[in-house]
Amino acid sequence: MAEYRVPLKDMNYVLFDVLGVDSMWQGSEALAEAVDKDTAQAILEECAKLAENEVAPISREADEIGVTYDQGKVTTAPGFKEAFQAYTEGGWSALGGDPEYGGMGMPKVITALHEEMFCAADISFSLYPGLTAGAALSIAKHGSDALKEKYLPNMYAGTWTGSMCLTEAHAGSDLGMIRTKAVPQEDGSYLVTGNKIFITAGEHDMSENIIHLVLAKLPDAPAGSRGISLFLVPKIHVNDDGSLGEANQVSCGAIEHKMGIHASATCVMNFDGAKGYLVGEINKGLACMFTMMNFERIGVGIQGIGAAERSYQNALEYAKDRIQGRSLSGVKSPDAAADSIMVHGDVRRMLLNMKAFNEGSRALSTYISLQLDYATFASGAEREKGDALAALMTPLAKAFFTDVGFESTVAGQQVFGGHGFIREWGQEQLVRDCRIAQIYEGTNGIQAMDLLARKVAGSKGALMDLWLKDANAYVDSVSDPSLTEFVADLRQALTDLDTVTKNLLLRAADNAEELGSAANDYLHLFGYTAMAFIWLKMAEVSTTNMEQDPAFHQSKLKTARYFFQKLLPRRHALIATIDAGAETLFDIEDDMF
Amino acid sequence: MAEYRVPLKDMNYVLFDVLGVDSMWQGSEALAEAVDKDTAQAILEECAKLAENEVAPISREADEIGVTYDQGKVTTAPGFKEAFQAYTEGGWSALGGDPEYGGMGMPKVITALHEEMFCAADISFSLYPGLTAGAALSIAKHGSDALKEKYLPNMYAGTWTGSMCLTEAHAGSDLGMIRTKAVPQEDGSYLVTGNKIFITAGEHDMSENIIHLVLAKLPDAPAGSRGISLFLVPKIHVNDDGSLGEANQVSCGAIEHKMGIHASATCVMNFDGAKGYLVGEINKGLACMFTMMNFERIGVGIQGIGAAERSYQNALEYAKDRIQGRSLSGVKSPDAAADSIMVHGDVRRMLLNMKAFNEGSRALSTYISLQLDYATFASGAEREKGDALAALMTPLAKAFFTDVGFESTVAGQQVFGGHGFIREWGQEQLVRDCRIAQIYEGTNGIQAMDLLARKVAGSKGALMDLWLKDANAYVDSVSDPSLTEFVADLRQALTDLDTVTKNLLLRAADNAEELGSAANDYLHLFGYTAMAFIWLKMAEVSTTNMEQDPAFHQSKLKTARYFFQKLLPRRHALIATIDAGAETLFDIEDDMF
Repeated sequence: MAEYRVPLKDMNYVLFDVLGVDSMWQGSEALAEAVDKDTAQAILEECAKLAENEVAPISREADEIGVTYDQGKVTTAPGFKEAFQAYTEGGWSALGGDPEYGGMGMPKVITALHEEMFCAADISFSLYPGLTAGAALSIAKHGSDALKEKYLPNMYAGTWTGSMCLTEAHAGSDLGMIRTKAVPQEDGSYLVTGNKIFITAGEHDMSENIIHLVLAKLPDAPAGSRGISLFLVPKIHVNDDGSLGEANQVSCGAIEHKMGIHASATCVMNFDGAKGYLVGEINKGLACMFTMMNFERIGVGIQGIGAAERSYQNALEYAKDRIQGRSLSGVKSPDAAADSIMVHGDVRRMLLNMKAFNEGSRALSTYISLQLDYATFASGAEREKGDALAALMTPLAKAFFTDVGFESTVAGQQVFGGHGFIREWGQEQLVRDCRIAQIYEGTNGIQAMDLLARKVAGSKGALMDLWLKDANAYVDSVSDPSLTEFVADLRQALTDLDTVTKNLLLRAADNAEELGSAANDYLHLFGYTAMAFIWLKMAEVSTTNMEQDPAFHQSKLKTARYFFQKLLPRRHALIATIDAGAETLFDIEDDMF
Repeated sequence: MAEYRVPLKDMNYVLFDVLGVDSMWQGSEALAEAVDKDTAQAILEECAKLAENEVAPISREADEIGVTYDQGKVTTAPGFKEAFQAYTEGGWSALGGDPEYGGMGMPKVITALHEEMFCAADISFSLYPGLTAGAALSIAKHGSDALKEKYLPNMYAGTWTGSMCLTEAHAGSDLGMIRTKAVPQEDGSYLVTGNKIFITAGEHDMSENIIHLVLAKLPDAPAGSRGISLFLVPKIHVNDDGSLGEANQVSCGAIEHKMGIHASATCVMNFDGAKGYLVGEINKGLACMFTMMNFERIGVGIQGIGAAERSYQNALEYAKDRIQGRSLSGVKSPDAAADSIMVHGDVRRMLLNMKAFNEGSRALSTYISLQLDYATFASGAEREKGDALAALMTPLAKAFFTDVGFESTVAGQQVFGGHGFIREWGQEQLVRDCRIAQIYEGTNGIQAMDLLARKVAGSKGALMDLWLKDANAYVDSVSDPSLTEFVADLRQALTDLDTVTKNLLLRAADNAEELGSAANDYLHLFGYTAMAFIWLKMAEVSTTNMEQDPAFHQSKLKTARYFFQKLLPRRHALIATIDAGAETLFDIEDDMF
């Protein structure tokens, strides 16, 4: 396997050249205090060293050995403890944390790129700090001051980690059906009882304590999702002086054996009258979760980017080294027994698909993260718009980046031929590890429904109109005549997306099934269109900056052209299948399947 | 995991209602003697029992335990020996074999459907008899009478198995570079020396002897693929009286650790002056291999169908049982806590994609097998045409059925949500097992080049014209007005494929890279078009036969409509990317990747 190298240059290009995030930072008091361009670059460089040198090298062995379970104790893979210690010593557990409790207060655009590095290095590893950051975010947003003071500093220090306990065996996508109970006690705490499954980092040996956020129902709670509350349940009780007390009634009953992310502890967690503390309001637990979910879901989308970037780097190195066959247009390396497989159109196709998807996803994911930053750090109309675009585009980030990321890891495996199927080369691990990102944190089908039914139809099209207006305004602003080819295609794509949306909403007014039937294709249509939008931005920036670094910017321009000619046309198929409607999906009875 | 049930009804429908293979059998002396409808149905039923009851149930454990290696000895997974014994006792190793040496002489349409069953039951298991049948076929076609007499009866009896030793570490897709040497001996035999990798069933404990077919070069052979010869190298020498003698100089140096097909022994094979016998002519080894390859490659395509069918059956059962969420168009099961996930449009989309692909692939693969049968058993113009269509469509079968099969296993895993990622449910194994079928026996990229460069461009478009003419004639013959919707779409698809082909060949005349750049998309365009052709055939047959079995034939008709409306439109994207040409693939320098 090639050594993983963080694409720092590309990250800086996206942040500062394409999106100009530093000017946004200067407009926010909190951000201006926390970060500037130099600080951000220094942070990314330090994180990159850690990801490259400490985490990436242990990924293969961690996959082979995985997590082990023995009578409630979970042991992480070799090297994980040490790597996590290095991570916390670097201060990275605090990266996005609330400065009032010891966090570094970095914007999502920075934490997201830091996430990409660790996902590329090893998705399993990235989940331990990732879940901790997510749990801490929920506590910071919805917890009482007392809870925040008691728990956040240690979570930011990384001495304690976090978990999110949502799913139960019978309740996954449909959390309204959960059965875990929380019974109020006289001291204001609750006793939580129930069984949770698929709990990432629910139990392990890398931290002194684990802070579980648990969805449960009060005895008198309304049925369904309106009766769900959120509780903080520590693995080990924390005394008032902050020291650790006795063990709580929480145990890990088993770990799952999975297709991939073998080094991630996926736990069955049993709460047997465990003491917990309400986070946020009673019966508003799902809303509290959703605050955090926008951040988490982008993070899962980024797992797709990380795995695909790693796979691309490996595939590119292999393709350059491997000699096999001759170029169709004449021998390229007459002195060698064969040409490098880089000469073959189909190998270039696979590599360029990966390159165009990876760089497009990185830029688009940073653009979406930027909307979250506006929603968090800006004010007034800017904040509202950021909030709206983040709501619209978060399901896109989660599902689209993992779908094209998975496609890319499969392509990166294919470049290796038979060697791609053999474990020692690492390419097959990336396929297996990436696959889960399409499933957890709300399956990609759920994301598609979130996008189309909740966000687009739920706003009567207003959210999509908002994005389309922005995108059209941008297209209209591009005046460089050398970019005409892109401008015309993107303008058409935006018009088509608008038309498809309006027609779909009209049909859905008569038949709600139109939404569920079209959701997946609609999400992809939006994905290709939004990625074309960000590729045009990159093409424009690189055209402007060409002379500064011709090889880099030519590569961007050529990859943009590849995207427009070879990947954006997939939208034609999607439009046709969306327009075909729901009838063929529902006109067949269940027993005819 | 659901119990696997062989879709016998669908197989019979394809064979006799859709393709009317029995009338073809009656026109061939050899086939009329070997098989009729009743015999064929009895064979498929018996094979089905074995696949369902003996092989499918051991697949999960075989994946967990896999093949083990100890100092040259390879031990197969628990139950494999017994299942293989039951298989050989059923006589199935002889199914497609030459009757002169104890084979049953069945046509490919029957052996192919038998292959699907065992692939669905367990791809790893299917490889042991599959490789044996392939090796026996090569010997039967190209071996001397002496070799045939000595080796075929035991291979047909299943007491000996076979392997194909092609790949070397530095020579996979490019076999011209192999280094294995064969030195002629005075007695007419050869001493074979070299190392082969990725040798399926190269060593194991299920048979008394293993007959390796080995590609090697004579000391004075021309360079490249014109200097390759084929040798039969037994693991254990066979005495003139047919008894086993001493061990040959063949050893297994290691087995590979892989993403999937854990129960298939993928061996490093070392030949250290092993005694071998020439098969066919000197320096014509690759041609000998290619005879067999059409049969083998369809077989690998069928692995995709088998895995996808198994995944579909599991996913369908799960979707019917799993309750989660409510229907968009109103509660469907008011007495249950939630509706079955069959109510969700996106779940139906995934299941219908699988159903349309599986049934379409089964029918199309049987149609292609029928062309092979014409090439083998017919004479004159019929034979020539069968030969031409088989040559054209074999790479399609291998690559298209494994590509859509892989997509289907991924969809079948997605239907399970988080449970799809957990090993115990079996869905993730099908993804891992199916994945190899896109890689081995010539990667799907190689298949695409075989189709476009060798077959289509190599015949100056004549082979594609032949198929298009046939398909257009069929479309013109469909007169039922209720089928107009399909007829119009397919006619357009055929016209577009013709136009795309002609334009592509014109461009390729100026720039050969056009072929490699378009090959993958072209193969898929042909695949969707050919599958539409076979779905129209099924729609027509089912419309005619509707009253005999309304539920079955309605299901076919509705699935045909689903295919035309929801899957065939993918061709629009493919046409656009093919028409975009090779420029964006080659206009970027290697160091800009």
